[in-house]
Amino acid sequence: MARPITFLSDYGTADEFAGVCRAVMARIAPDVRIIDITHGLPRHAVRQGAVVMANAVPFAEPGVHVAVIDPGVGSERRPVAVLAQQEERVFVGPDNGVLGPVLDACGGAAAAVDLTTSPFRLQPVTATFHGRDLFAPVAARLASGASLQEAGEEIEVSSLTRLELPEPRVYQDRVVAHVTYVDGFGNVALNVAHDDLASTFLRLGHRILVQTQHAQVTVPFARTFSDVGQGQGLLYEDSARALALAVNRESAAEMLGLSADDEVTLSPAS
Amino acid sequence: MARPITFLSDYGTADEFAGVCRAVMARIAPDVRIIDITHGLPRHAVRQGAVVMANAVPFAEPGVHVAVIDPGVGSERRPVAVLAQQEERVFVGPDNGVLGPVLDACGGAAAAVDLTTSPFRLQPVTATFHGRDLFAPVAARLASGASLQEAGEEIEVSSLTRLELPEPRVYQDRVVAHVTYVDGFGNVALNVAHDDLASTFLRLGHRILVQTQHAQVTVPFARTFSDVGQGQGLLYEDSARALALAVNRESAAEMLGLSADDEVTLSPAS
Amino acid sequence: MARPITFLSDYGTADEFAGVCRAVMARIAPDVRIIDITHGLPRHAVRQGAVVMANAVPFAEPGVHVAVIDPGVGSERRPVAVLAQQEERVFVGPDNGVLGPVLDACGGAAAAVDLTTSPFRLQPVTATFHGRDLFAPVAARLASGASLQEAGEEIEVSSLTRLELPEPRVYQDRVVAHVTYVDGFGNVALNVAHDDLASTFLRLGHRILVQTQHAQVTVPFARTFSDVGQGQGLLYEDSARALALAVNRESAAEMLGLSADDEVTLSPAS
Repeated sequence: MARPITFLSDYGTADEFAGVCRAVMARIAPDVRIIDITHGLPRHAVRQGAVVMANAVPFAEPGVHVAVIDPGVGSERRPVAVLAQQEERVFVGPDNGVLGPVLDACGGAAAAVDLTTSPFRLQPVTATFHGRDLFAPVAARLASGASLQEAGEEIEVSSLTRLELPEPRVYQDRVVAHVTYVDGFGNVALNVAHDDLASTFLRLGHRILVQTQHAQVTVPFARTFSDVGQGQGLLYEDSARALALAVNRESAAEMLGLSADDEVTLSPAS
Repeated sequence: MARPITFLSDYGTADEFAGVCRAVMARIAPDVRIIDITHGLPRHAVRQGAVVMANAVPFAEPGVHVAVIDPGVGSERRPVAVLAQQEERVFVGPDNGVLGPVLDACGGAAAAVDLTTSPFRLQPVTATFHGRDLFAPVAARLASGASLQEAGEEIEVSSLTRLELPEPRVYQDRVVAHVTYVDGFGNVALNVAHDDLASTFLRLGHRILVQTQHAQVTVPFARTFSDVGQGQGLLYEDSARALALAVNRESAAEMLGLSADDEVTLSPAS
Repeated sequence: MARPITFLSDYGTADEFAGVCRAVMARIAPDVRIIDITHGLPRHAVRQGAVVMANAVPFAEPGVHVAVIDPGVGSERRPVAVLAQQEERVFVGPDNGVLGPVLDACGGAAAAVDLTTSPFRLQPVTATFHGRDLFAPVAARLASGASLQEAGEEIEVSSLTRLELPEPRVYQDRVVAHVTYVDGFGNVALNVAHDDLASTFLRLGHRILVQTQHAQVTVPFARTFSDVGQGQGLLYEDSARALALAVNRESAAEMLGLSADDEVTLSPAS
């Protein structure tokens, strides 16, 4: 019956916060595997966490998938658990949009509960550490076989918070995209997916003019970093099959002055 | 018989030190769960490690609890294993005070052994890596069912090193507290516990004047970060139920110039 | 049948890369233990990764040992799995030299396969994330009992890439050594092993003149950090039994301006 838990947060690696959550989960569910996805996301980066969840979770065995990026901890935002349409995956976290894209990737939400007064919570629930007091024990019980309905009060799935993400604009002679996130290598993912490429001028091997607010550079659309020289830029499809910018062995984000949500205009190099 | 191991150190995440300790534990005790509490504490921060152990360990299933913050590794400080009065928890680490507060939280020490010539040690014991050569194999054997007495030479529990921690001073019109630690978010914990508050003027909702050596600020005593605006300060009870200072989405430690042991004076805002 | 996996990479702790690899491994091999050695090595530091693998892996239970430091990911460098002569240890990673020293430490390579078209790979194999698409699933299958021959196309072990490492030069009145790596504490390991010391003037307790390109300092050959005062330097045998330079509670690398491959000349202090 036991299913694995995946665990993502912005708790960082300096403090004991992620570790205490693991300890709480392990105490309640001694046989459940806990897989740390990462705890190193930028603090309060709800949107980046949402993208990472959508990229990472589909590779994990279906189970309970926890995402604690929670700038509003202790406020009115609801703590929730959500059952996805596909594979009986259950998502646990704050209802601030961090679970939206991964739910979309799993067929949408089938059912959801508000965890505020969950019978599985540790008491007292402190105002600032819902990871330990609420999300970890709920996830451990769900992974051990408890049902969603036992975990909290049922709510309408239509009431779940959605992120408002910018949409790319595709023109005949240019694509205006946005940075979805910057990874630790300085690679810059854009909101242009593999399936969008066919309708654009963007083709492997072509040279593309990249314009940002701070810089302008011409790069090839290549397969991988080492297709260009060290310190040279490239456009490529990243491992999540999103269009991305990189500089071989250096940071594209630094060289182009890019961070999340920035606009990037791509056009054919003349 | 097997019990879990919790593992805390200042080995950091850059090097293989924590990983090699995990490998040693897993080799000796293949069925024992290892729960990393954190390895990101500031180097040699014995006092901060002691506070974190006391805050974290009670949430873990009773087992073997390792704390390797060990600036004196290889010197005359003793490596020890200590049985607590409560729940048969066993603590393993250097006898430099890092285990003191968590032992207090678990009813005090019932028995202790010096591990210097433990039959469980890896040989040769190097002078600089007792985590790998001494603490990890001893913890793994204890978690697998070995007794404390088998692990080393019995010593008097009264001989264990105690930290000398500053005491807060409570006056009618002010409280002089000290910083116990600063977390990775820049939140500043003070040595004023939940149970101390009743005897002071510190009440939820009141405004408090906070004076440090470098700054002076008036903040509300609030419940959680988002009770104040972004960039605004607050006094609150943190998740360990200690009084603490924070700035919503920013670093209180930076804004107030605070680090461990600094004095902070709190008084009612006029 | 199941054997543990050790996992080392330069994926860092900010992103989900190591976590997704763990998720892939756990999905394929739910009963296999995964031991993270470290993911915090400097990016693309093949040589440092090679040294760390050689130092760390012998302490782990024999199993499948993954090292993903892969600046040439997606290029012509081969992904490989290599069976060692000793203990049936299997190594998985890019064929760029990162596996060389640990193979030497395990008696050399007995057999090797090219994983490029491994039946165990996830498809599509992206050009930039072979950790997830190739190394993780192959490691999980090998740890679950698959044979090396099932994992890929057999190749000559003599064709495996070797690192060219600098050799120390030993003279009667000086030793010219090189930095093999700098750990997160700033301790500087040199390419002089325990067994080399007997043929030199380097003896515990002696004072040694250390000359680098940027600095010159006289330090004792001591046992451990606390044998010298805070801020004082020492020469010592580190936990891998290599000669190393440290400064008690500070960074020797910073004080001496040293990084990997730099030359260090040691001579008796007059």
